[in-house]
Amino acid sequence: MNSKKGIPEKTIERLAMYRRLLSGLKEKGLEHLYSHQLAEFTRNTPAQIRRDLMMTGYVSNARKGYTIGDLVKKIDETLAGSQRQKIALVGIGNLGRAILSYFNNQHSALSIVASFDNDDTKVNRVIAGCRCYHIKDLEAKIKEEGIDLAIITVPGHHAQEVAEKLESAGITGILNFAPVPLKLPDSIYSDRIDITTAIEKVAYFASKIRKEL
Amino acid sequence: MNSKKGIPEKTIERLAMYRRLLSGLKEKGLEHLYSHQLAEFTRNTPAQIRRDLMMTGYVSNARKGYTIGDLVKKIDETLAGSQRQKIALVGIGNLGRAILSYFNNQHSALSIVASFDNDDTKVNRVIAGCRCYHIKDLEAKIKEEGIDLAIITVPGHHAQEVAEKLESAGITGILNFAPVPLKLPDSIYSDRIDITTAIEKVAYFASKIRKEL
Repeated sequence: MNSKKGIPEKTIERLAMYRRLLSGLKEKGLEHLYSHQLAEFTRNTPAQIRRDLMMTGYVSNARKGYTIGDLVKKIDETLAGSQRQKIALVGIGNLGRAILSYFNNQHSALSIVASFDNDDTKVNRVIAGCRCYHIKDLEAKIKEEGIDLAIITVPGHHAQEVAEKLESAGITGILNFAPVPLKLPDSIYSDRIDITTAIEKVAYFASKIRKEL
Repeated sequence: MNSKKGIPEKTIERLAMYRRLLSGLKEKGLEHLYSHQLAEFTRNTPAQIRRDLMMTGYVSNARKGYTIGDLVKKIDETLAGSQRQKIALVGIGNLGRAILSYFNNQHSALSIVASFDNDDTKVNRVIAGCRCYHIKDLEAKIKEEGIDLAIITVPGHHAQEVAEKLESAGITGILNFAPVPLKLPDSIYSDRIDITTAIEKVAYFASKIRKEL
């Protein structure tokens, strides 16, 4: 989870956030934006926004603010590493299908090119726009396709085992949707999202708030 | 984002995580588990596991460890607030559809009972198993159905406006999938998940790792 050298993790997160927000505004026909407007949208200070965007080398025009198209391009260049990488998804349950159909409908340079499961009724079928392979072919397929990243959507008690298989296969980045943390060496970057736990937590604290009202 | 009084936020998160993991193991036919095994699955210390589970009032049998079924029931009781609550989802884009189809296929006491959008081609249709209403009917529908929680899946530049509408309608908990943070009063609990930013961040740091290898 270390950022290694270079731009800090939180800055990368914010740049990716600015890019998505700016791309959305550009699609709506907006061409210029001031740092204080971007600050309002993202609940940051204008100073923070300017510091972050300085990392991209983009210089704003004080009169017109940021030219959205140019700024998006600059962020693209800075986050270049996040582009044109192939992703494998492991675990075709409900969550796996949902993530697949979300991703395959996004216009992103990141794409899920193969999925894996151990269920023979799923193997060799195209599910949510992506071909499913047997988990036993994981390593061969990842090498053959030159896949760098993986998304894990298997049940919690299988997540670590799958992560280790992915690591042996040469994967360097994992986004883990299983409800358990992974233990991995520094040669692999991983992050975790747990949607069900998040909604359960919101539900729990929301009900506390209602009891206090 | 405060935990208010009572059980800390991180403990609630871990209890929800244990419940999902234990339910998965129970479905596989496992009946008993030692704290050190649960610790291994969840990358916690056995002491932490025991402290967390003490919150539920469950006492383990030293010889056989935890009886999974009973432990799940105890966690259910402790997280009772997270059960039987109705959810509204706002924003039927690709992500909204994915979240809907994931949730509506889960066997959870939390269910999405209504969705909202401002696109007339979606309104009054059943999408991913859930009826879509016009955003202008948000407040009336939320009160009519007794909905407590909301999931936001609108573009970033609409998220704050939608969150404020939800707050006026009496929602006390929000899970926000839009790429911007929300500014809300303490009378509403909110948390954020940004799937696209997370995968972009993984991609960025994974590519840094590959360059160093």
